[in-house]
Amino acid sequence: MIPSIRSNIRAMAGYTPGEQPRDGAYVKLNTNENPYPPSPRVFEAIQKALTGDRLRKYPDPLGHEFRETAGRVLGVDSACILIGNGSDDVLTILTRAFVPEGGLIVSPTPSYLLYKTLAEIQGARHHVIPFTHDWRLDANQVPGAVNLSFIPNPNSPTGTLMPAESLVHWPGPLIIDEAYVDFADSNCLHLVKQSERMVVTRSLSKSYALAGIRFGFAVASPAVTAELYKVKDSYNCDVLSLAAATAALADQAHMLANRARIIATRNRLTKALRGLGFEVCDSQANFVWCRRRDCRLEPLYLELKRRKILVRYMHFEGYGEGLRISIGTEAEIDRLVEEMMRIA
Amino acid sequence: MIPSIRSNIRAMAGYTPGEQPRDGAYVKLNTNENPYPPSPRVFEAIQKALTGDRLRKYPDPLGHEFRETAGRVLGVDSACILIGNGSDDVLTILTRAFVPEGGLIVSPTPSYLLYKTLAEIQGARHHVIPFTHDWRLDANQVPGAVNLSFIPNPNSPTGTLMPAESLVHWPGPLIIDEAYVDFADSNCLHLVKQSERMVVTRSLSKSYALAGIRFGFAVASPAVTAELYKVKDSYNCDVLSLAAATAALADQAHMLANRARIIATRNRLTKALRGLGFEVCDSQANFVWCRRRDCRLEPLYLELKRRKILVRYMHFEGYGEGLRISIGTEAEIDRLVEEMMRIA
Repeated sequence: MIPSIRSNIRAMAGYTPGEQPRDGAYVKLNTNENPYPPSPRVFEAIQKALTGDRLRKYPDPLGHEFRETAGRVLGVDSACILIGNGSDDVLTILTRAFVPEGGLIVSPTPSYLLYKTLAEIQGARHHVIPFTHDWRLDANQVPGAVNLSFIPNPNSPTGTLMPAESLVHWPGPLIIDEAYVDFADSNCLHLVKQSERMVVTRSLSKSYALAGIRFGFAVASPAVTAELYKVKDSYNCDVLSLAAATAALADQAHMLANRARIIATRNRLTKALRGLGFEVCDSQANFVWCRRRDCRLEPLYLELKRRKILVRYMHFEGYGEGLRISIGTEAEIDRLVEEMMRIA
Repeated sequence: MIPSIRSNIRAMAGYTPGEQPRDGAYVKLNTNENPYPPSPRVFEAIQKALTGDRLRKYPDPLGHEFRETAGRVLGVDSACILIGNGSDDVLTILTRAFVPEGGLIVSPTPSYLLYKTLAEIQGARHHVIPFTHDWRLDANQVPGAVNLSFIPNPNSPTGTLMPAESLVHWPGPLIIDEAYVDFADSNCLHLVKQSERMVVTRSLSKSYALAGIRFGFAVASPAVTAELYKVKDSYNCDVLSLAAATAALADQAHMLANRARIIATRNRLTKALRGLGFEVCDSQANFVWCRRRDCRLEPLYLELKRRKILVRYMHFEGYGEGLRISIGTEAEIDRLVEEMMRIA
């Protein structure tokens, strides 16, 4: 018998992240990593921080330098920035700040599955709102007792983007999870300035190619940010990740060049998949979501895996299945399309 | 008005970590950092992991390599090891796994103040049990409804150690926080094998000189560990900190040589402070706790700070004040003692 673990924890299955094979033999198109390396400035910054004196001492708990850089790059006050050990850490901090045990979290479906896990860990209820056929959400479906809504925008796994104006009247505190927004045409940052109910979260894992170092942040009103700082672990970001994240954000040119390559490949893959008979959403992210009406997709996922190509097979209750394919290098996507043609 | 932040969060002050001055002009003896650099193998391991491919990809969410190394070094099954982004992350995970909102956390006083903050964030109650004059705790003072107890052993700020056998009959789930145990004569790891109620936590910040990279872990029964993995963020430890922590733990010779130096300096400082008229606890940690009956200590703390030496001044309700002085290099401790003699 396990002593006194909370019943909500015992009852939950736990979030399952995408497969992370420990051998390097796979073309890995399953967890939306960037296929290109981070900025050379990231390596310089880590090397500079890599001294005995920096490693043995605690890092800056508030992340001043990162916050000043992010504030400057994004055009917001540095007091609006919360630093996090990956945007998962930021989403956890937000959940703990806004949602009591027994509270209510709302998020869309089909969408990122972590929000349900965050509700389960907190002992809160979780309510899903289905996307409409044109990938919008009906704010009238939000229950009155909501404590927090999470809306990823662009959404995963679909890559679809909702315009900021459609979210202005969303009821209650709203977290707009912009993990993929650097690949989109617009963002919702200006909503934070308009309302203290709005929080935007960002990740350095995707557009800045830093999934390995774990860094994300939130942009909120200074008053909300001050409350969030009470909830975070004092030293949640380490000295090397702070240095890396600051350098990555400062090198916008590298990120934008990288972004342009990925978007070009994304558009090419979308066209190729449509040519093969898939329905593909117009993606504003670094992945595409594709479905078929004429056959099941799980066998295709398994056959690709057998051929050492990993994509993400997903099934959502009430919606159905699909494959989410991360945008790799041009050569990786060529290889994927060739194998798909052979299998079909 | 801040929208819908939970009342327990709004009401709390937030944990205040020790001062981390951003200029390097201070002799820093206030946050129990190791005065010596980490193992050279740590730098090699970070350099090896510092590739574009490792940075752009997610790290191993389960930390297999670290767990195998830690299991081997500690003589426990790797299934008993939970990896954490600093031991603060581990303490947060434990709180969320064991303590419901409105639950009860017990910890001693005078002791580590973070446990109260963890209770506040979780919306739980916090009950303190005072140490006896010989630095023991009376298990009969634990309320029947306890969800979790935290006992740091060695304790901070006193550096005192309770023998493992005195904790065997502690009621309810017990977290033995062994952040400082590598500087002590014994530890409580064997208690985890005896009872699923027992969890030991460790930090790499102190004995391994890695406060900057944030790494800690828990040792618990495999069944409890499996529940804790559901609560942690999937990717809570980054690729560089995993590499650093694994290399640090594998180099026991470096840690032990470092430990011996620090213990020698600790014993010298204890003697010097007693010679200056302080009451000093026999410390089993990398700091000493000193008090005076004849005068207030806050002016001494401030005067040392003015002279660019930072120590930690602390005051505990119902107990009184004291100075906690981290063990620095021999030269740093010489400088401290000289300045104290001048001030006195």
